[in-house]
Amino acid sequence: MMKKTLPDDKSFHMTPEQFRDQGHAVVDWIADYYKSIESYPVLSRVKPGAIRASLPDHPPVNGEAFETILKDVEKVILPGITHWQSPNFFAFFPSNTSGISILGDLLSSGLGVQGMLWATSPACTELETHVLDWLVSMLDLPDKFLSTKSGGGVIQDTASSATLCALLAARERATNFDSNRRGGDGKLVAYTSSQAHSSIEKNVQIAGIGRENLRLIRVDTNFAMDPAALAAQIQQDRAAGFMPFFVCSTVGTTSSNAIDPLAQIGPICREHNLWLHVDAAMSGTAALCPEFRHIHNGLEYADSYCFNPHKWMFTNFDCDCFYVADRKALIRTLSVLPEYLRNQATESGAVFDYRDWQIPLGRRFRSLKLWLVIRHYGIEGLQYHIRQHVELAQQFAHWVQRDDRFELAAPAPLNLVCFRHKAGDEVNQRLMDGLNRSGDLYLTHTRLNDRMTLRFCVGQTNTQRRHVEQAWKRIQEEAANLMV
Amino acid sequence: MMKKTLPDDKSFHMTPEQFRDQGHAVVDWIADYYKSIESYPVLSRVKPGAIRASLPDHPPVNGEAFETILKDVEKVILPGITHWQSPNFFAFFPSNTSGISILGDLLSSGLGVQGMLWATSPACTELETHVLDWLVSMLDLPDKFLSTKSGGGVIQDTASSATLCALLAARERATNFDSNRRGGDGKLVAYTSSQAHSSIEKNVQIAGIGRENLRLIRVDTNFAMDPAALAAQIQQDRAAGFMPFFVCSTVGTTSSNAIDPLAQIGPICREHNLWLHVDAAMSGTAALCPEFRHIHNGLEYADSYCFNPHKWMFTNFDCDCFYVADRKALIRTLSVLPEYLRNQATESGAVFDYRDWQIPLGRRFRSLKLWLVIRHYGIEGLQYHIRQHVELAQQFAHWVQRDDRFELAAPAPLNLVCFRHKAGDEVNQRLMDGLNRSGDLYLTHTRLNDRMTLRFCVGQTNTQRRHVEQAWKRIQEEAANLMV
Repeated sequence: MMKKTLPDDKSFHMTPEQFRDQGHAVVDWIADYYKSIESYPVLSRVKPGAIRASLPDHPPVNGEAFETILKDVEKVILPGITHWQSPNFFAFFPSNTSGISILGDLLSSGLGVQGMLWATSPACTELETHVLDWLVSMLDLPDKFLSTKSGGGVIQDTASSATLCALLAARERATNFDSNRRGGDGKLVAYTSSQAHSSIEKNVQIAGIGRENLRLIRVDTNFAMDPAALAAQIQQDRAAGFMPFFVCSTVGTTSSNAIDPLAQIGPICREHNLWLHVDAAMSGTAALCPEFRHIHNGLEYADSYCFNPHKWMFTNFDCDCFYVADRKALIRTLSVLPEYLRNQATESGAVFDYRDWQIPLGRRFRSLKLWLVIRHYGIEGLQYHIRQHVELAQQFAHWVQRDDRFELAAPAPLNLVCFRHKAGDEVNQRLMDGLNRSGDLYLTHTRLNDRMTLRFCVGQTNTQRRHVEQAWKRIQEEAANLMV
Repeated sequence: MMKKTLPDDKSFHMTPEQFRDQGHAVVDWIADYYKSIESYPVLSRVKPGAIRASLPDHPPVNGEAFETILKDVEKVILPGITHWQSPNFFAFFPSNTSGISILGDLLSSGLGVQGMLWATSPACTELETHVLDWLVSMLDLPDKFLSTKSGGGVIQDTASSATLCALLAARERATNFDSNRRGGDGKLVAYTSSQAHSSIEKNVQIAGIGRENLRLIRVDTNFAMDPAALAAQIQQDRAAGFMPFFVCSTVGTTSSNAIDPLAQIGPICREHNLWLHVDAAMSGTAALCPEFRHIHNGLEYADSYCFNPHKWMFTNFDCDCFYVADRKALIRTLSVLPEYLRNQATESGAVFDYRDWQIPLGRRFRSLKLWLVIRHYGIEGLQYHIRQHVELAQQFAHWVQRDDRFELAAPAPLNLVCFRHKAGDEVNQRLMDGLNRSGDLYLTHTRLNDRMTLRFCVGQTNTQRRHVEQAWKRIQEEAANLMV
């Protein structure tokens, strides 16, 4: 026997009983936070460096009491929080959540499993495959995305990462699965609209395609991709010796919620054998309701698709659902199998190993929260709240139209309203800054037709009619004050 | 006013009081899980498809009761769980956690903030920067990795993603910040050892460098990179017109915990102006203890470094700490700024926007759990448990050496022991399968010198001396049975 140098009976870990007590305290803290959430300014008011300045320079040598730590969350952290879960949060796109999702994520943290391989926790893989198949029917997506057909779904952290995976699989398919081996050649060309998410440009850079090989196709008056311009650009690139290979279409752009016409873009992609990826990060959730499914018209042409339950479907970050029509192309692109991950289940070919469907190796049990959300709300509950959000946004758009000082800046097909004060950029900037500084609500901006435009997005879990009414009242007040 | 079509008083959301009750139930469930965790077979015994077969074909139309759902977690999910948090888990590398970390992550889920920009929650960014600076001193890393110097740290999901970010920044630096624009050119060459993690190969493919432009440098008898072979290969590539640009060294390979000699690799990288990234995913945590800091000898040459508190530092997945010496190179590589993300704080240059330090845009408040872990344990508590794990692994190695039937297959510098039965691959395979099937413990394998090798890694939070003693007893028993 070797000499024991450390005492065995010492432990700094929480016992299960301590975890029980302190866990209850944290649950209570969160419940109280949601009860009082409207009392905080939505946008944090701290100055750069203020939070750091309130933290000790050096880490503690000795452990501290749980009560001390929890008090500091309240005292030190909370002033530096922008309250994304406030019902008065109308900025960006939402990143909403729900009680059931928080508890699903807590279970996942508690189980602490890695789902990189089927074998490392079969339930983590199989529940994910199953729930993503459920969502194909819930959103009425094309059957080819089902795991029981040629495709399948996987949970990614974000739409950015999903789009990167799609881009890589497209790159490999276009080069007869040779680009992984030899790297980029400067000939591959990708397409998206000038209104698409910044992650497309970032991904094209990451994947070694090169930013100058990304074509930003012009948009129509509704800020949706112009299919004729896409077709013309593809022809021009082919004629110049380039190899067009990938189109990223958006269902609900971040800027204005524009919906690219998939039914016209799809046939162009088919004709030229381009991979069509559809990014419906926020708006995809609307397809839970049959009356909004028109946003997916033409989706049958897509090779891949993603939407984020962590934006609008009451499921906390991170949870992006990514589907491919041909899972073999994706797996062949992303699979690298070292000896230390070999196992019988993988060799048998009877299972999915989700590490082959994503960039990183490790993965959390994210389907648990998604499963719990779907079971808690049921299809009926999810539909009700999505409809409510769309109705509130439509009402807001109606108020904007009735006020002579304001105008809509783009169509508002769902839950995002882009609008502006008619008095120009400076007034809109001051209006936004004043409202955000007040703490009463938080909204952000974009530029459309080179004009400052305010964005009002209804998607926070706890946003009710009174919050939207109050927000509009505050916008009107602030506008009146500006003009005095 | 528009017509209201949906009743306002309807809500499918949990109230704060329901969240309180059901949250307590989930906390209790997790506490009970940890109390009974040793009663489960460590490696799940379900057959492929069994979990899916127990789930309903269709999602529920109407919401279900919380109690029903929680019962199903127990009944349907638990049999499909491989218990990573069991003290009898010795497989792969650990992915450990702790009560305090689970509660920190719960707070993060509850607050539900997005940390993509400083402005979207200043505390999320500033706490992260601060805690990662703390870790520089806790691990005695080079000062240049401090945010207060030219560098800084950021939390990534995994070491795979951190290495990808390092590779991209290196690619940009080597091309005078031109590779993002024009894509790959087939000339850039990267280096790692033949024992490095599979994610390096995957990342080189993703980044458009091309697998054939990754050189797998041979290792010495300890499975560590041979610096002379690296230098020779770089010379050869230069002579052939290639552009060497990146070396990924490993401190603690996944296969055998080999430690590349940074002090010799570093000067070679300096001489040829190559970016040196150091991946210390699991083993970096050992540097909390001064007596293990030799693993980082030569780290002063590194341009970037990462280690995973989610492996061995009692912090639940995901939490990889990634450091760069020159943050400007990283930010310039990964920054894309669309109008809808512009804000005063960003424009002022006084803040970090962590979206520019990573692949995805969205990001969770991950530093909260890390902060709580450090405060709960203190440096003293963390050191105690790391030392205990290393001591237990060393004891296990000692037992292996004293048993004539077994041999060590590689040096065991820290908490991983690579060993084998002397009777050959088939016996080792049967030994491993038998042990894993028994449910008493879980261990995995690798191949070293083309021979099947068993890996025994001590890093699970709740592993104590009795678990390691029992594991060795079971290994001896199983070996005896095989030979009958």
